[in-house]
Amino acid sequence: MSERIWTAGLVVIGDEILSGRTHDKNIAQIASWLQVQGIRLSEVRVVPDVTQRIVTAVNALREEYDYLFTTGGIGPTHDDITVDAVAEALGVAVVIHPEARALLERYYADKPGGLTEARLRMARVPEGAELIPNRMSGAPGIRLGNIHLMAGVPHITAGMLDALTGSLEGGAPLLTETIGCWTAESEIAEALRAVEQAHPACQIGSYPFFRDGRVGANFVVRSTDPQALAACVTALCEALATEGYDFTPGGI
Amino acid sequence: MSERIWTAGLVVIGDEILSGRTHDKNIAQIASWLQVQGIRLSEVRVVPDVTQRIVTAVNALREEYDYLFTTGGIGPTHDDITVDAVAEALGVAVVIHPEARALLERYYADKPGGLTEARLRMARVPEGAELIPNRMSGAPGIRLGNIHLMAGVPHITAGMLDALTGSLEGGAPLLTETIGCWTAESEIAEALRAVEQAHPACQIGSYPFFRDGRVGANFVVRSTDPQALAACVTALCEALATEGYDFTPGGI
Repeated sequence: MSERIWTAGLVVIGDEILSGRTHDKNIAQIASWLQVQGIRLSEVRVVPDVTQRIVTAVNALREEYDYLFTTGGIGPTHDDITVDAVAEALGVAVVIHPEARALLERYYADKPGGLTEARLRMARVPEGAELIPNRMSGAPGIRLGNIHLMAGVPHITAGMLDALTGSLEGGAPLLTETIGCWTAESEIAEALRAVEQAHPACQIGSYPFFRDGRVGANFVVRSTDPQALAACVTALCEALATEGYDFTPGGI
Repeated sequence: MSERIWTAGLVVIGDEILSGRTHDKNIAQIASWLQVQGIRLSEVRVVPDVTQRIVTAVNALREEYDYLFTTGGIGPTHDDITVDAVAEALGVAVVIHPEARALLERYYADKPGGLTEARLRMARVPEGAELIPNRMSGAPGIRLGNIHLMAGVPHITAGMLDALTGSLEGGAPLLTETIGCWTAESEIAEALRAVEQAHPACQIGSYPFFRDGRVGANFVVRSTDPQALAACVTALCEALATEGYDFTPGGI
């Protein structure tokens, strides 16, 4: 019985990522969250703040995967063009969402300047969209069909993910177990390959590191099937022991 | 006179990034390095350890941009399939590079096990490739046409970038200047838009933050033209002062 695998794509929008100024934290954050929802992040594209580039990436990934997430470009300033680009990708108009306007009116009621024209930009959504609550600041995320527009600032995105938890249909979550070993991965490559081939329901990733003057590697076993995962981990530990290596369950 | 803009694409290869296990550091590292070379990182795609997915991304980006970089998947283990995928993308064979073999022979001469079959995998290159030196470990990077295959481990990639410094033709580097301001970016959105429109050779990015209980934003002005950059920064500072905001040259 092979279970359906649910997939997601992510479009990270922002010149600041492509210039190296900002280290992206949303890829790992969204990937980890999706894993728990039983959804596999299958592709990420990072594109600049250029409408046509966003349109192309959004259209490619929303058709290819079950879900699409975007991060960035939903704030109040002139470089925040994600809503317009997604509306263009879908061929719908941009409208002011009444509930978003009400949220922003409340949020800015006691703040200097009140709800300015610029701030009202954050109530703009592609026609037909729902809001994703954001407890951290006034501006909500946006959900339309399989598309989810999230903030660029990681802790605001975290709040939006929290609001979405449990609301997206997924499959069996991908389970992982890590075995660490103070060995060059090249010494153990043949054994890894043999163990993986003998356990077709599992993948084994090998992640070398260099620490305290010694080389080591973490071997990450992944499967949606807990029994298969356990059997593969046991086989891997036996293989490591047979070759004379100490290993650390849970990773180093 | 409009100068040629040199561009690059990056394909990040690795299940560990898409699972959220590993936080990517290579995007920012390669982006920053490219800026100094006068090359603009224009797109990043993160794909899993699946040959066909790597082939598709490599072919899309090597044709679209002047340069293509990949990170990950050039080690000795079974999940290291980048060389095979790139060879398939280019329609060339995979061969053992004699110089890479010699490097590995020297590197492993005094190490347990010597140059095993698995380690020899790291001498495999798409036919016609040159090596990119790697002072950190035995395995070299690989250069073929406009494609550069780099390590996944960031400090090894750093060494390979160092070896490439000055060897890729680029244009005028993109210059940036940052102005920090303790204000909600939404209060200053109109002024930002006006300043950017008056300075077509510059882009202004607005990056909000929340720190020590206060909101603020850094405004990053980018241009390849130093005079245009200086004029735009001056105009932005004047606009901030006119609206009654303190600002911090260099950013907060």
